[in-house]
Amino acid sequence: MSPHVFRYEVSPHLWVYLACRGVLHTRRSKFQKIEVVDSYDLGRMLVLDGVINLTERDECVYHEMLVHVPVFSHPDPSQVLIVGGGDGGTARELVKHAGIKDIRQVEIDAEVIAVAKEYFPSLGHALDDPKVNVMIMDAIQYLRETRERFDVILIDSTDPVIGQSAGLFTAAFYRDCLNALTDEGILAAQIGDIVFDRDIVVPVYRKLKEVFPIVKIFRAPIPAYTIVPFSFACCSKTEDPEKGPDISRFDPGFQTRYYNPEIHRAAFALPEQLKRDLRE
Amino acid sequence: MSPHVFRYEVSPHLWVYLACRGVLHTRRSKFQKIEVVDSYDLGRMLVLDGVINLTERDECVYHEMLVHVPVFSHPDPSQVLIVGGGDGGTARELVKHAGIKDIRQVEIDAEVIAVAKEYFPSLGHALDDPKVNVMIMDAIQYLRETRERFDVILIDSTDPVIGQSAGLFTAAFYRDCLNALTDEGILAAQIGDIVFDRDIVVPVYRKLKEVFPIVKIFRAPIPAYTIVPFSFACCSKTEDPEKGPDISRFDPGFQTRYYNPEIHRAAFALPEQLKRDLRE
Repeated sequence: MSPHVFRYEVSPHLWVYLACRGVLHTRRSKFQKIEVVDSYDLGRMLVLDGVINLTERDECVYHEMLVHVPVFSHPDPSQVLIVGGGDGGTARELVKHAGIKDIRQVEIDAEVIAVAKEYFPSLGHALDDPKVNVMIMDAIQYLRETRERFDVILIDSTDPVIGQSAGLFTAAFYRDCLNALTDEGILAAQIGDIVFDRDIVVPVYRKLKEVFPIVKIFRAPIPAYTIVPFSFACCSKTEDPEKGPDISRFDPGFQTRYYNPEIHRAAFALPEQLKRDLRE
Repeated sequence: MSPHVFRYEVSPHLWVYLACRGVLHTRRSKFQKIEVVDSYDLGRMLVLDGVINLTERDECVYHEMLVHVPVFSHPDPSQVLIVGGGDGGTARELVKHAGIKDIRQVEIDAEVIAVAKEYFPSLGHALDDPKVNVMIMDAIQYLRETRERFDVILIDSTDPVIGQSAGLFTAAFYRDCLNALTDEGILAAQIGDIVFDRDIVVPVYRKLKEVFPIVKIFRAPIPAYTIVPFSFACCSKTEDPEKGPDISRFDPGFQTRYYNPEIHRAAFALPEQLKRDLRE
């Protein structure tokens, strides 16, 4: 990568180029190459193994949707587990919810946390909140063995196409998640670009459908990931996340840049062709 | 432009590259350079003065939203005016509505129509429908002088940044449109990328607000135009388009690839930051 242009592939025939001021940081952890790149339009970007993990400009869309859609869909969440999420953005959104008392976070790579605290302090410092308890370990092993139960589980991982997180997109892992949820438990996960990576993402959706009673896709635009709406799954035992949030909990003091109750409901509307593709 | 890569700028620091099989057609009309480019991912593309006007892959999103959002928001539309729309995609969607009896279309450039009929027959042939009456003339002059009245006006133009259509984004033109609408009349217009072209698009929104009693922004992803949701405005005298369509008119025989009643309502949900930007 030239220090002045960052390129990402949406498909083998479609690429996005971002002009950059330069690379602020590069290190190779035990698990991945970690870079911080300073782009003109999207601000600082955390890049893992060459793939944009977050940008200052649109990380709010990703983190607010991953967190507030499931949390506002749960009647009274208290215990939450974050899988991955080493940058701290997911924890930052969770601590906005007064009812959430205990946030467990299982991140495999301590060096992502260190880089986030140095280069993305508005995200990384959330991990110092007293409600957040970070464990550095493999989440697959943690969920296989834990006897803890959570109201909400958030899978804030890298993409399934990238080797190390492939185990987070299996039916076996989803069953361990289901077992670790309380009776009204809800799980949310980023699942990727359901248009250009359809052959990867639709099978992930089908695996979730095998395991969870209710599985709904919701979407939000995150141009640093792809040029079409990026997809998440919200999976639950009893609650329908599509019905929208309890508005009384979204009071004027609840500050967001992207999420609001209308955006919550709208995110579940799927185009006709996508609905047909998912039924096939 | 190399025949093998088409590049478009989202901003001076962010570009999208599309690999292409080649350029199928180039001509220069009295008004603009017209090209047909064959891309791998988005199919054939109509390119006007170097800017993508439509692609086979996502023209359905643009045309279905521009047409069905206002038409399904009107209680009983019969007479419709299309400003621009020489490719025929807007007319194709309009003729799906049995209640619409008369479609007037004012297109300035006859050569766009000829190219569409040759290279995009599934769009261009809609202009041969007996309900469609195409006039080759300047829509600004037409609307200044006409005594016709329309239930729906659709502004299917190129972008305001491009010289020749700048006159379609003025308060004077919008007032002529208002005068040409019936009592329950609705107008829809593409207004562009409200994120990366905010300094152009927000003033257009404000001009519409000066002229029309009700102005609502709705959005849809059209990656050939930009990497964030693309914005349209729906303006009316009495009807609130955000309330959604009369579902009885969206029966199973009404075939779409993108639009449906949930997508209609969801398209009006705006992110918190955008709502704040529009209030400022």
